[in-house]
Amino acid sequence: MAREHIQTCPIARVLNLIGDSWTLMIIREALYGETRFSGIQYNTGIAKNLLISRLNKLIENGIFEKIDAGDSGTRYEYHLTDKGRSLNSVMMAMHQWGNEYEFEPGEAPVLLIDKKTGEELLPIRPQRANGDVINDDDIVVALGPGASNATRKRFSELRNL
Amino acid sequence: MAREHIQTCPIARVLNLIGDSWTLMIIREALYGETRFSGIQYNTGIAKNLLISRLNKLIENGIFEKIDAGDSGTRYEYHLTDKGRSLNSVMMAMHQWGNEYEFEPGEAPVLLIDKKTGEELLPIRPQRANGDVINDDDIVVALGPGASNATRKRFSELRNL
Repeated sequence: MAREHIQTCPIARVLNLIGDSWTLMIIREALYGETRFSGIQYNTGIAKNLLISRLNKLIENGIFEKIDAGDSGTRYEYHLTDKGRSLNSVMMAMHQWGNEYEFEPGEAPVLLIDKKTGEELLPIRPQRANGDVINDDDIVVALGPGASNATRKRFSELRNL
Repeated sequence: MAREHIQTCPIARVLNLIGDSWTLMIIREALYGETRFSGIQYNTGIAKNLLISRLNKLIENGIFEKIDAGDSGTRYEYHLTDKGRSLNSVMMAMHQWGNEYEFEPGEAPVLLIDKKTGEELLPIRPQRANGDVINDDDIVVALGPGASNATRKRFSELRNL
């Protein structure tokens, strides 16, 4: 694993937790419903020692929980917590970007589909407080209450996203 | 850099391009408007040799372009392409998740704000084809036209996201 970013920026903070290719593959597996160590290992191709270290870090950070699901004897399963499940938005954003830019039209291998209509979803977007979808041009990055001095200095110069 | 994932899954494909903590910090910088090598280096704290290798890979993959912006003499700038700028959704999803789960309420350092109202954005979500926001329960993962045999086998067993 790379050394940790020391900035207070939320993106740096998130990358310290999940900014690792194997970690994101493990989260993909969990979102697809895989709960077994062996299943995650098989579906991602990760080495056993790496999977152990990544899962331990994810458990420490409250993204996964390890549950004894054995009826007789011990059988561990790895489940996303609510915090972990909320990473769904990050994964869907990656999924849609990948389909758009890394596959030719009509050649995407996996699609995100509306269960009720069978149609493909529109790209993930944030919304205004009233629920309307918002364009990039109308989004700005602003200092929050927890901004460090370094962040305050930075955002005195750069404001638009 | 970790070895490449060989799956046809769009998430695996994306992680081969950007599934690296420094790479995502560089993209953060570019989305905040930084175009200079020295500025990216200063704002992320990345080592020079790592920044060179990451930028070269991003340029090879069409996410950045290197532009000679010098009036007299050569002065390179690094700009996101349209493909690169579209990673905004991934970064906003990480940003919002980080603010929600990695900072106490009222202590987020940086906020995503609606320029017109000054209000904070609602969480990023995909939409149905008609533009309505869709809940996780109504989203399924389905085979696309480019699904490999391995993907077809996988999704015969697991369907819900």
